[in-house]
Amino acid sequence: MQTQIELTTQPIPARPAWSAAVAGTFGAVVEFHGLVRGEEEGRPIAALEYEAYAAMAERLLRTLAEQASARNGCLFVRVIHRVGIIPAGEAAVYVAAGARHRAAAFAAVMEFMDQLKQDVPIWKCRTLPAEGAHE
Amino acid sequence: MQTQIELTTQPIPARPAWSAAVAGTFGAVVEFHGLVRGEEEGRPIAALEYEAYAAMAERLLRTLAEQASARNGCLFVRVIHRVGIIPAGEAAVYVAAGARHRAAAFAAVMEFMDQLKQDVPIWKCRTLPAEGAHE
Repeated sequence: MQTQIELTTQPIPARPAWSAAVAGTFGAVVEFHGLVRGEEEGRPIAALEYEAYAAMAERLLRTLAEQASARNGCLFVRVIHRVGIIPAGEAAVYVAAGARHRAAAFAAVMEFMDQLKQDVPIWKCRTLPAEGAHE
Repeated sequence: MQTQIELTTQPIPARPAWSAAVAGTFGAVVEFHGLVRGEEEGRPIAALEYEAYAAMAERLLRTLAEQASARNGCLFVRVIHRVGIIPAGEAAVYVAAGARHRAAAFAAVMEFMDQLKQDVPIWKCRTLPAEGAHE
């Protein structure tokens, strides 16, 4: 099982979820993109700022990814979480999992996301209103 | 709601699931890739060949995609199904859905895939063994 975890201040690239080395070993890949919406509580926003306790967040992301992957018999899982200022329409989190069958890949990604929201010390610290939006 | 359906004999490109026009309106995108595995019943294979009743398949793919999307309140859904000879490791089917929240996007893609397998006239018609594999 392959687990890749990354915490970054850069845009999350649309990257393929698997390499040639593992191609052919699994039948299902599920990718999840958690995006910043262009509004919050009905008001247009330009961006959100996320902060993290980086060392602890990375360690927990890895633990949760490995657990979700192992529970469901996945062949790989990849997690990228962005922090800092994230413009509306861009991804704050990306998760991909591959498994022999689709139910396992879906379950791993969904379980991981539920746990992430509960347990990982990454939080929204600031909302940047859209230009021209007034309080 | 935006629905895009495509039946193709070409490789399914790794393509972004949403356009700039809709960026910012949804918070979750789920992508599913159904891949040809490199073995079948324990034997290495090089490829599978898929056939379809094309007109009926496209119509049903659209209906099922629109139903799954509407039931879950998705903002877009995109389906690409490949037919013809598909090498091991490449995708036979790609589904993407976007929604305000992740549960809706996951549900739409999973429901669509369950229905696709049951109802749509696309089937595996031939298995091409891997080079060097003997009966």
